[in-house]
Amino acid sequence: MNNKIINTNDVLSNLANILESRLSEIDNDSNTKGSYTSQLFMNGPDAFLKKIGEESTELVMAAKDNISSKIVSEMADLWFHCLVLLSYYKLRPEDILVELKRREGISGITEKNSRTKI
Amino acid sequence: MNNKIINTNDVLSNLANILESRLSEIDNDSNTKGSYTSQLFMNGPDAFLKKIGEESTELVMAAKDNISSKIVSEMADLWFHCLVLLSYYKLRPEDILVELKRREGISGITEKNSRTKI
Amino acid sequence: MNNKIINTNDVLSNLANILESRLSEIDNDSNTKGSYTSQLFMNGPDAFLKKIGEESTELVMAAKDNISSKIVSEMADLWFHCLVLLSYYKLRPEDILVELKRREGISGITEKNSRTKI
Amino acid sequence: MNNKIINTNDVLSNLANILESRLSEIDNDSNTKGSYTSQLFMNGPDAFLKKIGEESTELVMAAKDNISSKIVSEMADLWFHCLVLLSYYKLRPEDILVELKRREGISGITEKNSRTKI
Repeated sequence: MNNKIINTNDVLSNLANILESRLSEIDNDSNTKGSYTSQLFMNGPDAFLKKIGEESTELVMAAKDNISSKIVSEMADLWFHCLVLLSYYKLRPEDILVELKRREGISGITEKNSRTKI
Repeated sequence: MNNKIINTNDVLSNLANILESRLSEIDNDSNTKGSYTSQLFMNGPDAFLKKIGEESTELVMAAKDNISSKIVSEMADLWFHCLVLLSYYKLRPEDILVELKRREGISGITEKNSRTKI
Repeated sequence: MNNKIINTNDVLSNLANILESRLSEIDNDSNTKGSYTSQLFMNGPDAFLKKIGEESTELVMAAKDNISSKIVSEMADLWFHCLVLLSYYKLRPEDILVELKRREGISGITEKNSRTKI
Repeated sequence: MNNKIINTNDVLSNLANILESRLSEIDNDSNTKGSYTSQLFMNGPDAFLKKIGEESTELVMAAKDNISSKIVSEMADLWFHCLVLLSYYKLRPEDILVELKRREGISGITEKNSRTKI
């Protein structure tokens, strides 16, 4: 895979936009029954919070099995439900990335000094 | 938050690069004892897999408490340990995002048709 | 509830006996498709291990909600899948109880001295 | 193992009694700082709820590793923290076992009929 074609921030942002659109459709009581995400939102937070527990366990099992394709698939499931959680609570993936960047404590120049941090 | 401030930078990719650097330092048996990440890598997969279970539970609790700052902090913890997992298994965050993009099945034009997918 | 009518060890032992019976039926290839437990066993360990992650998350949510009936129901779900796990790996709930008793380090007389332990 | 050695004793009930005693000591503000359980209670529910997520993940990993001693140890950890949770919410292990017995729906005679249940 050519990783260069993808900007990770953009993928998460685009996906968050779609999820927010699903959520607003529900608020507007339009017919969105066919979508898995819409169902998750309509069932309330426990429905997707439970999935986070389930998917993180499946991710751990995939790692124990050491099967790359399973790890990728289960982590995508976990992150997807994280994005659903963020939309529901009016947060954005950018909030998480800003927090990760803050902890990382790097601005390009200071990378070397941050080594003891992460 | 002004999301544009991080758009030009690829937070997850950069963080993955740093983690890979930590991991290679360990392979080279250099003195990296001071870093939390290095300790995680050296303690083997169970150490960070256990953290994934712990952090996902803390994320669920933060969501139940409905406290945005806690949600952001716990999800950053969870994603960070996901990145550690990926590095250990020679995978990249881009792999997860490509998978999410594949499921999303959109290229801008086809967004409307993908509505039943996500 | 009159808790005196119930010996906790006996309930777990009886339930373990039933689960072992289900498991042996599967080994004998008899027709046990109707049972939820049989399905779990036939689907292999990942099926019930995933449930342990899911049920423990639901237990945490029930506790955050502070609803006794939900706590009881979710913990029963969790313990049930723990018993399924034990049967699959040829272990018994008595093994767990012996371990808990060992840690407790009490034999009636020594209870007072064990206080710093648990 | 000779399971009969513990049958005359009610391990979970006894352990619950000890935990309740720890909890009442805290309420009475006595000096119980030395005990792990007392610390858990004093730190509030999130402290032991987080442990339930952590221990269930460790149990899943022990099962994937297929190491009996680890399975026993991790499940004992998980059940111990379940008992802590029950004490905190004024519940008893007997409540869980009554619920398990109810689901089991057997009284010895009706076992055969319950087969589709469990």
